[in-house]
Amino acid sequence: MAAKKLLILPGDGIGVEVMAQVRRIIDWLGKRRKIEFDLSEGLIGGASYDVHGTPLSDGTLAEALAADAVLLGAVGGPKWDNLPFQFKPERGLLKIRKEMGLFANLRPATVFDALAEASTLKAEVVAGLDIMILRELTGGLYFGEPRGIETLPDGSRKGVNTLVYTTEEIRRIGRVAFELARKRNKRVCSVDKANVLECTVLWREEMIKLQQEEFQDVELSHMYVDNAAMQLVRNPKQFDVMVTENMFGDILSDCAAMLTGSLGMLPSASLGAADASGRRRALYEPVHGSAPDIAGKDMANPLATILSFAMCLRYSFDLAEEADMIEAAVKAVLKGGLRTADIMQVGKAKVSTTVMGEAVVREL
Amino acid sequence: MAAKKLLILPGDGIGVEVMAQVRRIIDWLGKRRKIEFDLSEGLIGGASYDVHGTPLSDGTLAEALAADAVLLGAVGGPKWDNLPFQFKPERGLLKIRKEMGLFANLRPATVFDALAEASTLKAEVVAGLDIMILRELTGGLYFGEPRGIETLPDGSRKGVNTLVYTTEEIRRIGRVAFELARKRNKRVCSVDKANVLECTVLWREEMIKLQQEEFQDVELSHMYVDNAAMQLVRNPKQFDVMVTENMFGDILSDCAAMLTGSLGMLPSASLGAADASGRRRALYEPVHGSAPDIAGKDMANPLATILSFAMCLRYSFDLAEEADMIEAAVKAVLKGGLRTADIMQVGKAKVSTTVMGEAVVREL
Ligand SMILES: CC(C)[C@H](C(=O)O)[C@@H](O)C(=O)O
Ligand SMILES: CC(C)[C@H](C(=O)O)[C@@H](O)C(=O)O
Repeated sequence: MAAKKLLILPGDGIGVEVMAQVRRIIDWLGKRRKIEFDLSEGLIGGASYDVHGTPLSDGTLAEALAADAVLLGAVGGPKWDNLPFQFKPERGLLKIRKEMGLFANLRPATVFDALAEASTLKAEVVAGLDIMILRELTGGLYFGEPRGIETLPDGSRKGVNTLVYTTEEIRRIGRVAFELARKRNKRVCSVDKANVLECTVLWREEMIKLQQEEFQDVELSHMYVDNAAMQLVRNPKQFDVMVTENMFGDILSDCAAMLTGSLGMLPSASLGAADASGRRRALYEPVHGSAPDIAGKDMANPLATILSFAMCLRYSFDLAEEADMIEAAVKAVLKGGLRTADIMQVGKAKVSTTVMGEAVVREL
Repeated sequence: MAAKKLLILPGDGIGVEVMAQVRRIIDWLGKRRKIEFDLSEGLIGGASYDVHGTPLSDGTLAEALAADAVLLGAVGGPKWDNLPFQFKPERGLLKIRKEMGLFANLRPATVFDALAEASTLKAEVVAGLDIMILRELTGGLYFGEPRGIETLPDGSRKGVNTLVYTTEEIRRIGRVAFELARKRNKRVCSVDKANVLECTVLWREEMIKLQQEEFQDVELSHMYVDNAAMQLVRNPKQFDVMVTENMFGDILSDCAAMLTGSLGMLPSASLGAADASGRRRALYEPVHGSAPDIAGKDMANPLATILSFAMCLRYSFDLAEEADMIEAAVKAVLKGGLRTADIMQVGKAKVSTTVMGEAVVREL
């Protein structure tokens, strides 16, 4: 069997440093488990703009489309903040999501036992938390047309974006939500603003239909997005799978990630539609950003990216055993008391990105 | 001088009960402070739909437009959940905001000392919190055109809403933000998603211009909305005034309200443009909703509505002294240990809506 194609895109800021730690694990897989990848590395975001004048070159996009999976670090930084809109690092990320058709963004918000105290929420509110936020990723307000800024006859300006969903887009993300719930606690909470936005009235109606037609074994509830933001703070453990629109999902998943206290620990997966052989295009990335303030200082937490790689092994490469091993190694290292600066607690040992990466490999 | 016109719209659910407690305070103002209002009461939301077949009748709207201030309870409830979109209780609320031109929604998120423990966040993270979220209320995704649900030729459907802002809309809400900050700690954080949405690129550019032209004494910073949701959870005290788009403001202000642990305590004010005499159309309402689950049980917390009335006295009727007295009475009652169910704590006395209202009047 040909080795699986894995494309690594470290991106900007701490993306580069944390990805270097994943490389150690890839080496370990080769040496100790005889697992080889057809590995390549490319540029995205500001790093790509600096070399190619675009945040995502055609060459890199072609490689991503041909890959079995893509592992991404993070994009963005002050250096590129003042670029025109279409050259911003984020455009590269949005383009690769869109072109790869990655409509389903899985963002687990879990609390690691060793870190429950790190949350700003009371430990009893978050301890043991394990919810899955499923964000629609290629539609909605992020991609709707018309969009842009127009100058009016009187010299003033008008800015427009469009929130739009079709039946088909809603049903395909709904299906992923229900399927995920089947493997978990069989409860889906669909988040919308159906009391104000017609687009989300459609969202709610289609979710209800889909559940009745295909997923009667899964419980479906609905919540307005403002209430969902409140309920995440009040009692996050009430949720199992939460599914929502792109922009809402961006906000709610970051809120949920922060309340775990484990932001530097959270992986994510973005999946496309399954092809005839059941294979899905897939991109894995940590939930955290490029953290320009600590970039290059060997301070960043590599665990979210390492865990994203574990997700990649599990979902794209059918290597559940190795994924389990990596996840167990991460837990063991935390239990042993090692902490990067972001999750540092009194009485623990503060270590660098590199030392943390080495510790995981040693544990393996 | 003619008595000031005050229109009371209790609305649905607990709106009715909490407003009854404000009536006691109005009586007290008449008897003890010789302050009389030209008072009228009307219907809005489901209550209006049941009588008039519309969530806001022309008559009530005309009264609202003629009033010096409107005091609102809350709207909505399961009874009206399945009405067609245009009859839903929420349409009444959105229409009155739009027709009165109430573009500036002030939502303070403050923690009452006596209640810091009630938050799900650690007390040290929220104790003393006092931030002001300013939400644009008559534009953005809530009101943009085109909007609606369309059936496509193949029978599938498409739902659309539009996020739109003009220079003028951005500048007028920006001005309110900077003016508020001048009376506080002189810091405005403008929240947008300028890395993705062109409409909010315009928002950011106009905020920057406005600050340079008119408010150089106020510090302006910018934050992406997903990060803002995180920062509210991580360290809410970093903010002074936060200003943002209608939909973002709906989500962030509810998130902020919940993290205070004082949701049943939080008032809000919605203001229009100043006329030649400096008078602004204004509507005051609690941040909480109609809470159908506890409606009619004399359990609801009336303090948010009482404090909304205090805001009304202060901003619309120039009665700062009376507003101070009411706010002090509320604090004293809390200090004395009375609690409605929503803010109940071990060792305190649980009381009904009515008893809480009476206690505030007695304290006065
Ligand atoms: C960087 C940005 C474009 C991106 C998004 O908004 O989707 C990020 O916030 C995320 O959540 O992955
Ligand atoms: C009831 C609803 C229409 C309203 C809104 O979304 O504005 C409410 O959530 C609020 O925040 O005042």
